Amino acid sequence: MSVQISEAETVPVAWTRNDLLDLESLTAEEISLILDTADSFKERTDNCTKKLALLQGKTVANLFFENSTRTRTSFSLAARRLGADTVDFSSSGSSLSKGETFIDTAKNIEAMGVDAVVVRHRTPGTPRLLAQNIGCSIVNAGDGPHEHPTQGLLDILTIRQQRGSIDGLTVALVGDIAHSRTARSNIWGLQKLGAHVIVCGPTTLVSQRWEEFGVEIANSLDEILPRCDVLNLLRIQFERQQMRPFPSVREYALLYAMTGQRMKAAKDDVLIMAPGPINRGVEVTPEVADGPHSVILEQVNNGLAVRMAVLWLLLGADRATETKPR
Amino acid sequence: MSVQISEAETVPVAWTRNDLLDLESLTAEEISLILDTADSFKERTDNCTKKLALLQGKTVANLFFENSTRTRTSFSLAARRLGADTVDFSSSGSSLSKGETFIDTAKNIEAMGVDAVVVRHRTPGTPRLLAQNIGCSIVNAGDGPHEHPTQGLLDILTIRQQRGSIDGLTVALVGDIAHSRTARSNIWGLQKLGAHVIVCGPTTLVSQRWEEFGVEIANSLDEILPRCDVLNLLRIQFERQQMRPFPSVREYALLYAMTGQRMKAAKDDVLIMAPGPINRGVEVTPEVADGPHSVILEQVNNGLAVRMAVLWLLLGADRATETKPR
Amino acid sequence: MSVQISEAETVPVAWTRNDLLDLESLTAEEISLILDTADSFKERTDNCTKKLALLQGKTVANLFFENSTRTRTSFSLAARRLGADTVDFSSSGSSLSKGETFIDTAKNIEAMGVDAVVVRHRTPGTPRLLAQNIGCSIVNAGDGPHEHPTQGLLDILTIRQQRGSIDGLTVALVGDIAHSRTARSNIWGLQKLGAHVIVCGPTTLVSQRWEEFGVEIANSLDEILPRCDVLNLLRIQFERQQMRPFPSVREYALLYAMTGQRMKAAKDDVLIMAPGPINRGVEVTPEVADGPHSVILEQVNNGLAVRMAVLWLLLGADRATETKPR
Repeated sequence: MSVQISEAETVPVAWTRNDLLDLESLTAEEISLILDTADSFKERTDNCTKKLALLQGKTVANLFFENSTRTRTSFSLAARRLGADTVDFSSSGSSLSKGETFIDTAKNIEAMGVDAVVVRHRTPGTPRLLAQNIGCSIVNAGDGPHEHPTQGLLDILTIRQQRGSIDGLTVALVGDIAHSRTARSNIWGLQKLGAHVIVCGPTTLVSQRWEEFGVEIANSLDEILPRCDVLNLLRIQFERQQMRPFPSVREYALLYAMTGQRMKAAKDDVLIMAPGPINRGVEVTPEVADGPHSVILEQVNNGLAVRMAVLWLLLGADRATETKPR
Repeated sequence: MSVQISEAETVPVAWTRNDLLDLESLTAEEISLILDTADSFKERTDNCTKKLALLQGKTVANLFFENSTRTRTSFSLAARRLGADTVDFSSSGSSLSKGETFIDTAKNIEAMGVDAVVVRHRTPGTPRLLAQNIGCSIVNAGDGPHEHPTQGLLDILTIRQQRGSIDGLTVALVGDIAHSRTARSNIWGLQKLGAHVIVCGPTTLVSQRWEEFGVEIANSLDEILPRCDVLNLLRIQFERQQMRPFPSVREYALLYAMTGQRMKAAKDDVLIMAPGPINRGVEVTPEVADGPHSVILEQVNNGLAVRMAVLWLLLGADRATETKPR
Repeated sequence: MSVQISEAETVPVAWTRNDLLDLESLTAEEISLILDTADSFKERTDNCTKKLALLQGKTVANLFFENSTRTRTSFSLAARRLGADTVDFSSSGSSLSKGETFIDTAKNIEAMGVDAVVVRHRTPGTPRLLAQNIGCSIVNAGDGPHEHPTQGLLDILTIRQQRGSIDGLTVALVGDIAHSRTARSNIWGLQKLGAHVIVCGPTTLVSQRWEEFGVEIANSLDEILPRCDVLNLLRIQFERQQMRPFPSVREYALLYAMTGQRMKAAKDDVLIMAPGPINRGVEVTPEVADGPHSVILEQVNNGLAVRMAVLWLLLGADRATETKPR
C-alpha cells in the first residue's frame, strides 16, 4: 500500500496492524496514513453525511464499561456510514454482572462473528489484553488515564486541516492533564509529527513527571499564550476527582479559562480546541467557544472521519493491493 | 408541491417547513398534507409493514429526556421503514450528566451529520430552542404539557380514516386534560379542520381557562355522551401527579370510565380512542377497549404512518418539484 | 417441505408452526429440521459472519423483561445477518411502568408492524400467553425456570456436529438443575432424539421429581463420569438463589467442578459444554474450559446459527414450496 503523505513527500506506507490500541506505538507514517484516509472519506461523503458500502456485512461491537453517549455514537455512526452493522454491549445488564470474566465476555462476542470491538474501560491496558486474547480487531476508545487514540487523531486532523501541517507548531494542552487520556494520545501523536507540545495547568493537575514525555511544562497560561498556535482546552473532569485539585472553580477559571480578554494576548490565528463536553465558563467562555477561532464542532465532525478511517483500515482495506478507499 | 386534499377539493399546498414543533402554527392545509402523505404511505407499505428506500443515507437521532419506549420505537421504526438510519441518545449516560449544556449536546449531534433530531423533554419550548440553534430538522415528540404534534396527527388521521372528514364532527377529550400535551395538539389540529371539541373531566383536571382555546368545557361525561362522534380517553398520568386530583380511582372510573353501560347512551357509530398506554378499568373497561367501536390499535399503526410522513416531508421530499412520495 | 434428516433417513417434514415456545411440544423431526437449517446457514455464511438477504423488510422485536446482553445480542445479530431489522424493548422505561398490561404492550408492538417478538420473562408461560393473543411469531428466549428452547437447540446442535448423531449418547446435565430452563429444554430435545440424559448435582439442586422427565438422577459426578459422552456444566445462578443450596462454593467445586484431575476419569472423547456465562473455578476450571475437549465457544457460534434457522423458518420460509434456505 502506498499513500500520499501530506506532511512531506510521497512515502510508501503499509497498514499492517489488526488493532488500534494507542498512538505511542504508531509511526509518524501510520498516523499520517490514518489522517489522509480520514480526509479522503470526509471529501467523498460530504463531511461524513453520506453513506458508503465499503464495510457491508461487517459487524462492529461497542463494549463500553464507562458511560459515553458521544464517543459510542460517533463510532456507531462511523461504522454505519461505511455500511457496517453495529451492536452495543453495556456493562450493566451484561454477563459480567453474572460473574463472567472480561476475557470470556470478549471471546463470546468474537464467537458471535463480530469483526471489531470498540472498547472503553477504566483500567489501562484493557484493550491490549483483549487484542492478545481474541482475533477480531480491537479499537481503544479510552482506557482509564492511559490513551484515547481516536480523540488524539481527530484533534491532530483538525489542526492539520487548518494549518496544512503539524511540523513546527506549538500546541498547548491546558487544564486537567492528570486525568487525561486525551492529553497522552495528543502528546504522542503531535510529537511524532513534529509539534512542540506544552502541558499547562495548576501543579496539582500537571506534575513534573510529564517531562519524561519530552513536553514543556507550564503553570501559567498567560506566560505561554503568546507562543501558542493551538490551545486544546481539556475538560475539568469533576466526575473523576475524589479531591478538588484547586480551591474553587472560580479560581481555576481566573487562571486558566480562555476568555475574550486572554484572546487579545494570543496569536492572531490561534486555534481554540476542546475535546468536549465543555464546561462553559470553566475552561472556556461562551464568547471564545463560539468565536471565530474555535474549531470545536469541526473536531466532532472529524471524529466521525477519523473513526471511519480507522475502521476501514482495520476491516476493509485489502492490505496487499489497495492504496485508498475506493 | 401540489397535493390532493381529501377534506374538500384539490388545493396546491407546499411543504416549506424544516421542523415540526407543534400543530398550533400549522395551517389546515399543512395538516391535511401530512395526513394525505400518511395515508399514501400506509397504502404503499401494507400498513407500514414494508420498507421503502426514500430516506436511504439519512440519519435520524432520538434525543429523549423522558422515558418512552413506545413513541421512541415508533419514530425509529418509521425512520427505518423509509431506509433511514437511527441513533438513540438517552439522558442518563449522556454528556449532559458531565455538565454540558443542552444546546452544546444538540450541536454535537448535528456535527455528527445527523439529519433530524426527534426530541422529548419535560420543558415546554425545548424543541423550538433546538430549532433556533441547529440546522437539522427538529421533530417535537412531546415537550412537557405543551404539545405532542405527531400524537395529535395520528389521532386525527384515525378519525379521518373512519369518517372521511373531520369537518363538523364533535370530538370529546376525556380525563386528564391538565397534564396533557396530547390534548393540546388534538385541540389545535381538530379545530383547524373544523371539528367541535369538548374537553371533559373533573374540575381539578379541566380548568375554565381552557375556554381560551375555543373549546367547550364539560364536567359530566354522561351529559355530553349522546352528542359525541369521537371519545378520546386520555390516560390518567398517575406518575406525573404530585397530588391526586380525585378522591379515588374508583370514583374517577365511576364518573368518567367508558363502560359497556355508558356505550348504550353513545351514538351508534361512536369511535373510542385512547392514546395509550391505557389503564384498564380506569379510563376504559376491557369490554369497550377491545370492543367493535375501539380504534386504539389503529392509532398505533397510524402513529407509524404519520411519523413516516413527517420525516419524509422534512427530509425526503424535494420541496420544489415533488408532489407525492414516489 | 421435505428435508434431509441427518439422524436417520430422508423423511418429509413440514414446518407449520408460527411460534417457537418450547422443545417439549416439538417432534424429533421438527427439531432435526431446525438443526439441519442451522447447519446449512452456518455453511453458507462462513460460521455466521456473512449476511444473507432472506428476511429483508422483516422486523424482529426483542422484548426482554430480564437482563441478558448475550441472548438478546445473539438474536439481534441472527436477525440482522438475515437482513431483518431489529428493535429493542426493555422493561424499564417501557409502558409497563405506566400501568399497561403485558398483553396491551404486545398488541402495541404488533400494531407497529413487527413480524416476530423474541420474549424473555421470569413468568413461565408468558410466551404462550403472547402467542395466544397476538398474530406475529413469538420466540421464547427463556420463561422463568420453564424452557429456553434456542439454548437447548444450540447445545444439541453442538453435540450433533461433533458426534454426527444424538441417538444413543449419554449426556449429563451437571449442577443447578433446579433453576434451569436450559436443563428442561435440553432434556426434552435430547430425549426426543434418542439420548440418555442424566441430571447430576447436590440433592438441594436436583430433586427426585425429575424422574417424571424420564431422566436418570445422580448426586455423584464421579460415579457417572466414566459413562458420559457429554457433560453440560450448568451455571450456578448465584443471582437467583435466595438461600445458598450448598455450604460453600469451595465445597460445590470439590464435588462438581470439572477439573483436569476429573478429566482423567472421563471418556477419551468426552465433550465439555457450558451454556455460559461460566463461573471459572466453580463449575469448571480454566484448564478444562479452555482445553481441547471444550466446545463452549462453538456453542456461542451455534447460538447464532440456530436463531437464524428459527427466525427463517418462522418468517422467511415459504412453507408450501421451499425445502431449504436458498
